Amino acid sequence: MSKKPLILVTNDDGITAPGLRTLIQVMNEIGDVVVVAPDSPQSAMGHAITINSTLFVEAVKIDDGPQSEYSCSGTPADCVKLAKNEILDRLPDLCVSGINHGSNSSINVIYSGTMSAAIEAGIENIPAIGFSLLDYSWSANFESTKSYVKTIAQNVLENGLPKGVVLNVNFPNLDKKDIKGIKICRQAKATWKEEFDKRKTPQGKDYYWLTGKFVNLDKGQDTDEWALENNYISVVPVEADLTAHHTIQELNTWNLND
Amino acid sequence: MSKKPLILVTNDDGITAPGLRTLIQVMNEIGDVVVVAPDSPQSAMGHAITINSTLFVEAVKIDDGPQSEYSCSGTPADCVKLAKNEILDRLPDLCVSGINHGSNSSINVIYSGTMSAAIEAGIENIPAIGFSLLDYSWSANFESTKSYVKTIAQNVLENGLPKGVVLNVNFPNLDKKDIKGIKICRQAKATWKEEFDKRKTPQGKDYYWLTGKFVNLDKGQDTDEWALENNYISVVPVEADLTAHHTIQELNTWNLND
Repeated sequence: MSKKPLILVTNDDGITAPGLRTLIQVMNEIGDVVVVAPDSPQSAMGHAITINSTLFVEAVKIDDGPQSEYSCSGTPADCVKLAKNEILDRLPDLCVSGINHGSNSSINVIYSGTMSAAIEAGIENIPAIGFSLLDYSWSANFESTKSYVKTIAQNVLENGLPKGVVLNVNFPNLDKKDIKGIKICRQAKATWKEEFDKRKTPQGKDYYWLTGKFVNLDKGQDTDEWALENNYISVVPVEADLTAHHTIQELNTWNLND
Repeated sequence: MSKKPLILVTNDDGITAPGLRTLIQVMNEIGDVVVVAPDSPQSAMGHAITINSTLFVEAVKIDDGPQSEYSCSGTPADCVKLAKNEILDRLPDLCVSGINHGSNSSINVIYSGTMSAAIEAGIENIPAIGFSLLDYSWSANFESTKSYVKTIAQNVLENGLPKGVVLNVNFPNLDKKDIKGIKICRQAKATWKEEFDKRKTPQGKDYYWLTGKFVNLDKGQDTDEWALENNYISVVPVEADLTAHHTIQELNTWNLND
């Protein structure tokens, strides 16, 4: 039996995405790699899971290397559930998701399919990391991320992560020589200012495309947005507890039971 | 101009769902109601948004009452974005989502379309509440929830909510006389033990249905699961900051930049 760590690799851009291919290359250097990734792009799927439809999984081989690969008809969260329950012989030592083509910093974490896979792994007590590069293009250059991806993954394998906590790692779109290092951050408070592009079908019916502009509302220097704007790689520890604990005391002053 | 509050109503079970119809009835008693809800069921859609496809919105009238109604081809989060940007004249005073057919307590909050609508409203600084009844059936009886839904909504309108914080309200499936009251709670630590139901298509290809069993891992008596098991209505304040703040200090001891 191999003594190398077992590493599950997934993403949300789909199994043929160059960012996923880069991640597989790096993970092949440190472990036994099994890829279970969506058969089509699943960006902005949030933490969707497939309960009203069937799921298909197929063994495939997209490119060379020792990794096993499976293509799945579901969402990123489905991929992790299926991998754990139906494909892998044992719980993986690490789950990595990405490298996403485009940012998942700040508020984007809740819309992100990349991060939903990592968070799903965290719920299953699998140490997990989501990686994203601030370049949306299919031909994005992932070269500068490789050594950092390896360092962060090795640190997680050595140190572990607190139960249920996963890492959200974002890379500035820079040459390696211009990256200043890695910063542990909190999620910046930010929002999207939506702009719906309203059009008419050839038959005259209104429809919309959702577009928008990211607005950082947070002046803190301990945020992921600050780190990225200042040429650092941001690492935000993330967990699936959405409770606003600090507000419970105030809500307990309301007269709900009178 | 009406002095009544402007209330946006949405859900994830779709615009014809009985739970939504109950919520509209109650909201009509306290405000001017605009419904923008998905044209088909969107359960377990998490915080998905539609960026790779078109969005259609249609004015409809499903049943009697003073409310305006719009049916939308997108996800619950899309409905809130479209309502705010394209349908409503001003920011609503309140957004309510549900009443969901089935639980959104504990870890279900991250898979929930109902709660993603409320969280999306919270990001847009609209006070918001997601309501769910612990009965998945289409013919669920929402009668016992009505007076509580009204009380909670009125409290939010009067007191406001901290910025970005929304409420996740779950009702036990009980007659009103058996409900003990309302408890402010934190989200219980829980998980789903998946069981994939593996089948073969008529052509002999494997496929899966995702099923599973909810497992509460949390013995705390301050959780939503405890409240619901003990015949209380659970109210969890929820926010879109996923940072695991308590782990930042530990991660800063790692040697990531050596």
